[in-house]
Amino acid sequence: MNKIEYKGPESKDAFSFRHYDKNRVVGGKTMGEQLRFAMSWWHTVNASGTDMFGGDTMDKTFGLSGLDMYKAKADFAFDFMQKLGIDFYCFHDVDVAPEGETLAESVKNLEIMTDYLLEKQKQTGIRPLWVTANMFGAKKFMAGAATSPDADVFAIAAGKVKAGIDAAVKLGAKGYVFWGGREGYDTLLNTDVALELDNLGRFMKMARDYGRSHGFDGDFYIEPKPKEPTKHQYDFDAATCANFLRANGLEKDFKLNIEANHATLAGHTFQHELRMAAVNGLFGSIDANQGDTLLGWDTDQFPTNVYDTTFCMYEVIKAGGFTNGGLNFDAKARRQSNTLDDTLLSYIAGMDAFALGLIKAHRIIEDGRVDAFIKERYSSYEKGIGRRIVSGEETLESLAEYAASLRNVEVPSGRQEYLEAVVNDILFSGEE
Amino acid sequence: MNKIEYKGPESKDAFSFRHYDKNRVVGGKTMGEQLRFAMSWWHTVNASGTDMFGGDTMDKTFGLSGLDMYKAKADFAFDFMQKLGIDFYCFHDVDVAPEGETLAESVKNLEIMTDYLLEKQKQTGIRPLWVTANMFGAKKFMAGAATSPDADVFAIAAGKVKAGIDAAVKLGAKGYVFWGGREGYDTLLNTDVALELDNLGRFMKMARDYGRSHGFDGDFYIEPKPKEPTKHQYDFDAATCANFLRANGLEKDFKLNIEANHATLAGHTFQHELRMAAVNGLFGSIDANQGDTLLGWDTDQFPTNVYDTTFCMYEVIKAGGFTNGGLNFDAKARRQSNTLDDTLLSYIAGMDAFALGLIKAHRIIEDGRVDAFIKERYSSYEKGIGRRIVSGEETLESLAEYAASLRNVEVPSGRQEYLEAVVNDILFSGEE
Amino acid sequence: MNKIEYKGPESKDAFSFRHYDKNRVVGGKTMGEQLRFAMSWWHTVNASGTDMFGGDTMDKTFGLSGLDMYKAKADFAFDFMQKLGIDFYCFHDVDVAPEGETLAESVKNLEIMTDYLLEKQKQTGIRPLWVTANMFGAKKFMAGAATSPDADVFAIAAGKVKAGIDAAVKLGAKGYVFWGGREGYDTLLNTDVALELDNLGRFMKMARDYGRSHGFDGDFYIEPKPKEPTKHQYDFDAATCANFLRANGLEKDFKLNIEANHATLAGHTFQHELRMAAVNGLFGSIDANQGDTLLGWDTDQFPTNVYDTTFCMYEVIKAGGFTNGGLNFDAKARRQSNTLDDTLLSYIAGMDAFALGLIKAHRIIEDGRVDAFIKERYSSYEKGIGRRIVSGEETLESLAEYAASLRNVEVPSGRQEYLEAVVNDILFSGEE
Amino acid sequence: MNKIEYKGPESKDAFSFRHYDKNRVVGGKTMGEQLRFAMSWWHTVNASGTDMFGGDTMDKTFGLSGLDMYKAKADFAFDFMQKLGIDFYCFHDVDVAPEGETLAESVKNLEIMTDYLLEKQKQTGIRPLWVTANMFGAKKFMAGAATSPDADVFAIAAGKVKAGIDAAVKLGAKGYVFWGGREGYDTLLNTDVALELDNLGRFMKMARDYGRSHGFDGDFYIEPKPKEPTKHQYDFDAATCANFLRANGLEKDFKLNIEANHATLAGHTFQHELRMAAVNGLFGSIDANQGDTLLGWDTDQFPTNVYDTTFCMYEVIKAGGFTNGGLNFDAKARRQSNTLDDTLLSYIAGMDAFALGLIKAHRIIEDGRVDAFIKERYSSYEKGIGRRIVSGEETLESLAEYAASLRNVEVPSGRQEYLEAVVNDILFSGEE
Repeated sequence: MNKIEYKGPESKDAFSFRHYDKNRVVGGKTMGEQLRFAMSWWHTVNASGTDMFGGDTMDKTFGLSGLDMYKAKADFAFDFMQKLGIDFYCFHDVDVAPEGETLAESVKNLEIMTDYLLEKQKQTGIRPLWVTANMFGAKKFMAGAATSPDADVFAIAAGKVKAGIDAAVKLGAKGYVFWGGREGYDTLLNTDVALELDNLGRFMKMARDYGRSHGFDGDFYIEPKPKEPTKHQYDFDAATCANFLRANGLEKDFKLNIEANHATLAGHTFQHELRMAAVNGLFGSIDANQGDTLLGWDTDQFPTNVYDTTFCMYEVIKAGGFTNGGLNFDAKARRQSNTLDDTLLSYIAGMDAFALGLIKAHRIIEDGRVDAFIKERYSSYEKGIGRRIVSGEETLESLAEYAASLRNVEVPSGRQEYLEAVVNDILFSGEE
Repeated sequence: MNKIEYKGPESKDAFSFRHYDKNRVVGGKTMGEQLRFAMSWWHTVNASGTDMFGGDTMDKTFGLSGLDMYKAKADFAFDFMQKLGIDFYCFHDVDVAPEGETLAESVKNLEIMTDYLLEKQKQTGIRPLWVTANMFGAKKFMAGAATSPDADVFAIAAGKVKAGIDAAVKLGAKGYVFWGGREGYDTLLNTDVALELDNLGRFMKMARDYGRSHGFDGDFYIEPKPKEPTKHQYDFDAATCANFLRANGLEKDFKLNIEANHATLAGHTFQHELRMAAVNGLFGSIDANQGDTLLGWDTDQFPTNVYDTTFCMYEVIKAGGFTNGGLNFDAKARRQSNTLDDTLLSYIAGMDAFALGLIKAHRIIEDGRVDAFIKERYSSYEKGIGRRIVSGEETLESLAEYAASLRNVEVPSGRQEYLEAVVNDILFSGEE
Repeated sequence: MNKIEYKGPESKDAFSFRHYDKNRVVGGKTMGEQLRFAMSWWHTVNASGTDMFGGDTMDKTFGLSGLDMYKAKADFAFDFMQKLGIDFYCFHDVDVAPEGETLAESVKNLEIMTDYLLEKQKQTGIRPLWVTANMFGAKKFMAGAATSPDADVFAIAAGKVKAGIDAAVKLGAKGYVFWGGREGYDTLLNTDVALELDNLGRFMKMARDYGRSHGFDGDFYIEPKPKEPTKHQYDFDAATCANFLRANGLEKDFKLNIEANHATLAGHTFQHELRMAAVNGLFGSIDANQGDTLLGWDTDQFPTNVYDTTFCMYEVIKAGGFTNGGLNFDAKARRQSNTLDDTLLSYIAGMDAFALGLIKAHRIIEDGRVDAFIKERYSSYEKGIGRRIVSGEETLESLAEYAASLRNVEVPSGRQEYLEAVVNDILFSGEE
Repeated sequence: MNKIEYKGPESKDAFSFRHYDKNRVVGGKTMGEQLRFAMSWWHTVNASGTDMFGGDTMDKTFGLSGLDMYKAKADFAFDFMQKLGIDFYCFHDVDVAPEGETLAESVKNLEIMTDYLLEKQKQTGIRPLWVTANMFGAKKFMAGAATSPDADVFAIAAGKVKAGIDAAVKLGAKGYVFWGGREGYDTLLNTDVALELDNLGRFMKMARDYGRSHGFDGDFYIEPKPKEPTKHQYDFDAATCANFLRANGLEKDFKLNIEANHATLAGHTFQHELRMAAVNGLFGSIDANQGDTLLGWDTDQFPTNVYDTTFCMYEVIKAGGFTNGGLNFDAKARRQSNTLDDTLLSYIAGMDAFALGLIKAHRIIEDGRVDAFIKERYSSYEKGIGRRIVSGEETLESLAEYAASLRNVEVPSGRQEYLEAVVNDILFSGEE
């Protein structure tokens, strides 16, 4: 096994890191500690290049089937992570173990496979960043899981989440993710939204209660996404999820898992969603990928835009860095990037882009021009009438009186273009 | 003054109503009571056909200026409403009175003009549906009002809202609207989102406290809009506003004013936003217009799509009808529809479309096929395991046990196309 | 076999037509002759409810495999069409016959199956509206067919089209469609656009030459689509295809197959694309479905919006009606509409929506208000300076001289809202 | 007058260039020769920060009015360009001279002002990159200019274009631009598209004929834009314009002026539109700005995204560089960037971003990895069957025969992620 090594920015070796130097200290912590990269099992170990108009372009069966195939995939996955120096992985129940005819059989398969994974974890020190259950792929979930109109489906979903939480505890995962792929609707003509949202709340509370009483002390995450596959998903964006969590009294136990591509599908920048999560006290973890804002579906591309990775890491640093979360590459090599080399090159591209983003975000903060500008811009709230507004000493009437005769109020320039130039100066200055 | 009269569906008189018959009883109340149409002062009395690439195409100055012009506009407005049989109007402070050099002067002008309006109200029985203050047009609001980085701007905004609430009380308005046109950001590079959102919360609480202690017993409304003129507005959509209201403890005093075109700009259907408002207990009032989902800005077109008006009225009926709210035509005749006749024809088109929507929505409910389908679809929650889930008797573990051996769970068909055909049957059946 | 019968607008029988009365004469021709409905084989006979996030929800294998399965599917298809009174069908080579290991084997399979289809055609009078070859699904087409960087793929594609044209001639199809699903690019970083477009031109010319010399006297069609599965498809929209056809001298033999959902993905209305096709002399055939403009992918929903079907049929009538083309339901029942009943109900919904569209479009023309308005609006080009402009008698200089002293030019109102109300009057008047 | 000077990448002086070094040779020509920057008169000298929801935030009247104001603006403009070292400017007729009551008066004003400009040109060596006429702002153009339903408007437009061409010849401009801001429609309900497109063709031919016979030997440009202010503009995108030019036999005299923000509004990348222009032989000039793909209107932001400027310059170099065209900053400082310093900083940001784009694009080409990858990817067309396809020796039949028994055709990986990483290596390597 050849590890991918750091060879510096000038390296022309495609199979080397140019920016990701795991043990390099940036801002008081190593890159590895700050970035906490995770491999997504589904895209990396299972996805075969299909899209809605075409079949497989890659074969990841290892010529096997059944549990043997799943074990071969696990072997591959751990080799792959070691090659790249990745310490975490993320998975759905069905990614790592075959589904059975019944929930009981599926749970049994999952237990067999988590035994196998645990063994590999012990050998490597790698562990899950988070665990989740796939409650959107099977026919029975066609109308949702916790929001299914069929109560039996709700019950099966509950069973899957229980098994998922058990797996998380067993494997030492500090995160459990809910992505409600079909928790939403295709048409309001057939949907009782109020009941569905109430059921979703009930489901989350059951999961929280089970987890907290069975040794899960990590974070529950909701992963916002506005649509696709459904017309509308209830977890539209960070603010929508915050509202749901508040309405159900779940904001203490849940945080958000923000995905770049889901942000843009909701009409937001990646940075916006991270900021909204932080402002609502819900910053948790990140699905690192990138979309194409000129396309209307979730392309899950490997993140290579360094503006985006820089602004992402800027928000992460401002939010205090990751605790239980990390950067999960919920990204797939393109359908035409159909070789194992491509998968490797894709991870290298993504890891380097985030390493560069970390370096540059850190430098933006060190440089200080952006933060100083913001501080100065709002300085009127640190004194006089502004300070009294913030401290709650003013009323509508007192302010009306204060303002009655004000003239020539001049709001200072927002200086957007200058600030963009400052960012460019730092991004393209070259010094690492 | 010739009143526009109801002449029935077969009328070829363009200046007649074909569907809006104000005193006709539909579902136990008159059309007038159910629809509560309001005239938007800004579009109807002031807008002159400009857009970002061209100047005026209409002249609404009546050859006057200063207070005389504003009085002439008021005369026009009340004539116009009487002609159409509209009982309500909506306005910003600056729509009805000229701005002064200082807040004090502006407030004085507003008082003069509200005296004038009050007189006209007494003559006609017409009154405001709601009042608002324009805190986005003037240069000083370029970076927001309650979220301005300049505390003096916050104070001036407070003074304007105080005057607006006073006007609402004086004129008998049961609504006060906040549309935060510039309460948002153009770039995160210069924005302290946390402080801005906190200030916005402080501002709303001050307004609530002032209103409640000065005789305003109507509803405060936030009007969601995702963007334009800013890149991001904090009141993105219904769910985002609900989150803000919950975070600030304002959900008792505030409701939402849902606009069709703002809904689509946020990536939602109009019906969706109405449903979300209702589900969050925040259904209040409606800005009735329509957008063009292939265009990315707020076109504020007169609503003529009967599917949309039908689904809107379906939601209104399901939410129990309007209390203080109503249907405000926040809509403008197109730049090329630049005659007074066009303004009149536009209102007729919009009022007829909503009258038809009311008739058809009522018929969908009477017909019963849609509602019966929904009831049946969720019937598993009225018995057995479903009933126990809803009543809180189950846990993740008990459900996992219940589900362990379930086989052949069959979720019933969603029947979307059938339901769409049922709606078409009702829409195009012709019987009124 | 129970035929779906016309039972009139008041029918509550879900399995009846409320508007489609095949032999009813509208505008001088029967509905059947005007609408020329076709069944799409892929969605109707093969699609199983999958999407990018979930597996099958329907089983259409008839418990068979290989050629037996394909024959059973054909039996089903012809029964289905007879039940609905549909006279045409559309198919890709791989829809009706299994692919072999080589092109030769695939062609052999296709010949066996077209023999079978021909037999069924003789029994029923049904025939293909058009034929096409699937050159996007298989791995070898991952980078395109005629625009593949691999010349062998170009050659295989040529062989498939040859077989498709042969099948069209054999089965009496008067159309052959090219939908270039992967004729485009995912990134310009790896793409030689100039070469690819030249190759696409070469390919089309080869097909035209082969067809014309082997008995194909129908229309070749390009079906515009802007994107999906690729980031960019070369056949973006009607105008782009027109440019391509002109650049390659193909505008005599090719027409366009306009799809509603592809139009909206390109940022256009369905009506716009039909008009652009007609204006460029390229109006050919239609893929009848509808998209969701708030979603960014091809949802291929059954068309039920009567505004859209009316404006579509208005354009069809204005373009002189179909010659070789027709209305192919390139539409699939939703993933949750997973029963055979749903497929039937979906077709009924779509056929009724188009029948209503035909009736209403015809009535708009008979009513005359819209067309008269347009004629009057442009009347200045029928006399004086306008007539001389149109007849080519004026120059920039002569017009400058003419216009030098013009004052008070008043362009008449565009009356958009009035015209929308006229359309509503006709749509909702009820008389059929 | 302090000139903005080049001070190198490490400069912290906001009022210096960090990358634009006008006389530095890159790829055999100076930066100045390659980039050919132009100032947009409308945004820079006239725009005052308004948007659809707010009035002026900047005052550019110099306390003057009438011709005096226009002269003061011209003085400012030439100072501004000299300060930045910009050699070209672009303007509409109404930007530089006041409109009169009649065409004759407007033309007279324009002549006075072009005399003034010519004098300033002689002093500075600065000249127009291109000239255009504003045929969208005035009320009379509300329904279009060449496509107006009113023939008098067509005539007035002709007079304006004549005057514009005369001005171009007088001032030595080698470009004349048509941006058809209202050449399109708001609703098809009132529009005769066929007549409008024919009239547009007639208009363009008249302009071409006049120009060619009156000393204009530069390029005519159409500037594609899909929509805004109208619902649909006929010059939707590069391909649509190419179709129009071919249909009217204008492709020899016209080229395209590609704008970044218009490209994204049409659903394309900036690079895509440049490539399409080049592939159709229509590459001409560029309106350099950037949009926000999450917003649906033309934001005309100053270009600061270095990925975009790099890919732009890559296309420019591949197209052979500019001849008569150049990079016109059709960009405006944000409404909140309301000081003269901001305008200056915005130009610096944009010029530096393009200078960096030029350097990096040149380096991508020198580096060779991207181009070599493309060449190799299509190498099958340089030999064997591929070569014969390209040279026209093959037919559908001969290819079908060749392909009949092919097996295991393997299309090579598209390597998108690797290529993106290569671009990042070059962009962030720091060496200039």
